[in-house]
Amino acid sequence: MDTKRIQRRLRRLRGELREKKLDGLILTKVENVRYLTSFSGHDSWVLVTAGECAGCRIVERRAAITKALAEQLDRAGKMRRIGVENSVSTAVLGKVRQALRPLKTRIVPIDSPAEKLRRVKEEQEVGEIRRAARIAWECLEVCLKQLRTGMTEQAFAARLEYEMKMRGAKVGFETIAAFGPNGSRNHHQPSARKLRKTDSILIDFGASVNGYTCDITRSFGWGRAGREYQRAWETVYAAQQAAIARVRDGILAAHVDAAARRVIDQSGFPVYGHGTGHGLGLEVHEQPFLSALDRKTRLKEGQVITIEPGIYLPGKFGIRIEDDVLVTKTGAKVLTKDSRYGFSGDTLTIF
Amino acid sequence: MDTKRIQRRLRRLRGELREKKLDGLILTKVENVRYLTSFSGHDSWVLVTAGECAGCRIVERRAAITKALAEQLDRAGKMRRIGVENSVSTAVLGKVRQALRPLKTRIVPIDSPAEKLRRVKEEQEVGEIRRAARIAWECLEVCLKQLRTGMTEQAFAARLEYEMKMRGAKVGFETIAAFGPNGSRNHHQPSARKLRKTDSILIDFGASVNGYTCDITRSFGWGRAGREYQRAWETVYAAQQAAIARVRDGILAAHVDAAARRVIDQSGFPVYGHGTGHGLGLEVHEQPFLSALDRKTRLKEGQVITIEPGIYLPGKFGIRIEDDVLVTKTGAKVLTKDSRYGFSGDTLTIF
Repeated sequence: MDTKRIQRRLRRLRGELREKKLDGLILTKVENVRYLTSFSGHDSWVLVTAGECAGCRIVERRAAITKALAEQLDRAGKMRRIGVENSVSTAVLGKVRQALRPLKTRIVPIDSPAEKLRRVKEEQEVGEIRRAARIAWECLEVCLKQLRTGMTEQAFAARLEYEMKMRGAKVGFETIAAFGPNGSRNHHQPSARKLRKTDSILIDFGASVNGYTCDITRSFGWGRAGREYQRAWETVYAAQQAAIARVRDGILAAHVDAAARRVIDQSGFPVYGHGTGHGLGLEVHEQPFLSALDRKTRLKEGQVITIEPGIYLPGKFGIRIEDDVLVTKTGAKVLTKDSRYGFSGDTLTIF
Repeated sequence: MDTKRIQRRLRRLRGELREKKLDGLILTKVENVRYLTSFSGHDSWVLVTAGECAGCRIVERRAAITKALAEQLDRAGKMRRIGVENSVSTAVLGKVRQALRPLKTRIVPIDSPAEKLRRVKEEQEVGEIRRAARIAWECLEVCLKQLRTGMTEQAFAARLEYEMKMRGAKVGFETIAAFGPNGSRNHHQPSARKLRKTDSILIDFGASVNGYTCDITRSFGWGRAGREYQRAWETVYAAQQAAIARVRDGILAAHVDAAARRVIDQSGFPVYGHGTGHGLGLEVHEQPFLSALDRKTRLKEGQVITIEPGIYLPGKFGIRIEDDVLVTKTGAKVLTKDSRYGFSGDTLTIF
């Protein structure tokens, strides 16, 4: 655990609390607890007081967590108004209120200031995502080499996840392995569908290292995938490159989103229904979100986001190309391997 | 999808709503949505009205889910008081209240009646758990045969999960594979620790079939695990058998819990700090919970619960034996394979 890093995060969080005129904050969400303590276990909360504080106290509780919380708040002295992350369930909030009633502390559910901090990554965090991406890519290479006509989506996904675990990484999220028309289905789950001699492949997956997840999608033709597939693939790739080219500190997220959509719209292919990207880190999906509807969010230096346009032709195929990029002062730094390696001609030729 | 089954569940749920004088219920938790619709996707809610209703309407929404909900409630006619599952986050509840403000409907967060229904399993649900257990056991057999001195916990867990996925099952929860002293650590995560020539092994894992998860723990000696290990293993096994022997419709869950603890207490080994078992089904941990502190909960015919006492000697080893049992009118039916197969003498001898 890097104590300095944690101290810096706490200092920033306290600044947020003072701004909101809160005497403290109860953090209950597992990723936020981890962010502020390095502790990755579940069922643990953090109480941060607004006043500066020499250190940090770890309390091993025996009874209910709400009771332990009340004791700590009592110890901490007069607290008129404290925040609680509004990701907490209504049931748990009720229990917190009940346990704190004797203290006359006002409990205010708020958007977590920790999640605001988490949007911009520290160097070390970018490093973890980069490490995750390196492992993920290595595993994809290994598995693509073993891919054969007749292999099921399930087998491919199982293999890919196995390889990540064998390298000490975790599976960041459930792998999508979709062959043929399955690639056009939203959130398709790996099935017993076998790879045909002429087919298309979509793989969406991520490794997680020290809690930080990467998120990569690659699409390939298998055998002679055909001209339409090839044209669609090149369109998605061009759309992604257009979006990445717009990424830089200060730009409206919606402008990056629009850059990708425009390329696909002009190609005559249908424009995808999902967002163009999202932040990633301790969660696979976190702020900021790149959506056409959000006219306010601006990208900031140090954020790590995915760029993932796609083309989906129901009954035919789906193509999505997704990379993770770091927002810099003047542009974007791609943390994942260059997606050109995914496709060459209309046949899968890797690397 | 078995429409009759869903209809029966809905009928029961409506009975619960009338009892609570609610005009409807909003279900937001993914397992409860699945239970009442067979739909397993995320980001979907169900609105159940208290009045009988000819059928079910699936609404594909384009905008925010709260907006779609408000439209459906408006269509459904006058609703004075509707429940919402209190597992919903405080943030989302706020959005629901805001969206429904024009309708003047009172929103009441409640313990979900769906979870009450889910406690008792239908025959088909028991079948799914049994199928999951069969696959899980088969995979454990395959992996134990490949186990070698020098293999890491990570490799064993990765292999086990791979085998489950290859059989079309999902991984019910993160596998615990713990060698030696790691077995005494709560929620240990598979590490690079290698299996030694003389060692102990604890594996806690589960497969999931059609959403239903089994939950199995086995503990083994490897090489000459020694007399203390053997005595502890036999104590845990005896404790588990004592608890299973008490299971039947109507018994206090705390009595089953006590039966297992007593055996361990009398042996002189330290008594475990966790509960003796929990319900399982669409969630790995669901009601009822078998805890020493709960003096009210009684087991009911048709419930499926785990029985999982353990002995943990920090720095030495951990032993836990966990099986899934169906509560019947007069006793318990074990759905997992007999745990005697786990250990014979002080050396691992499987089957």
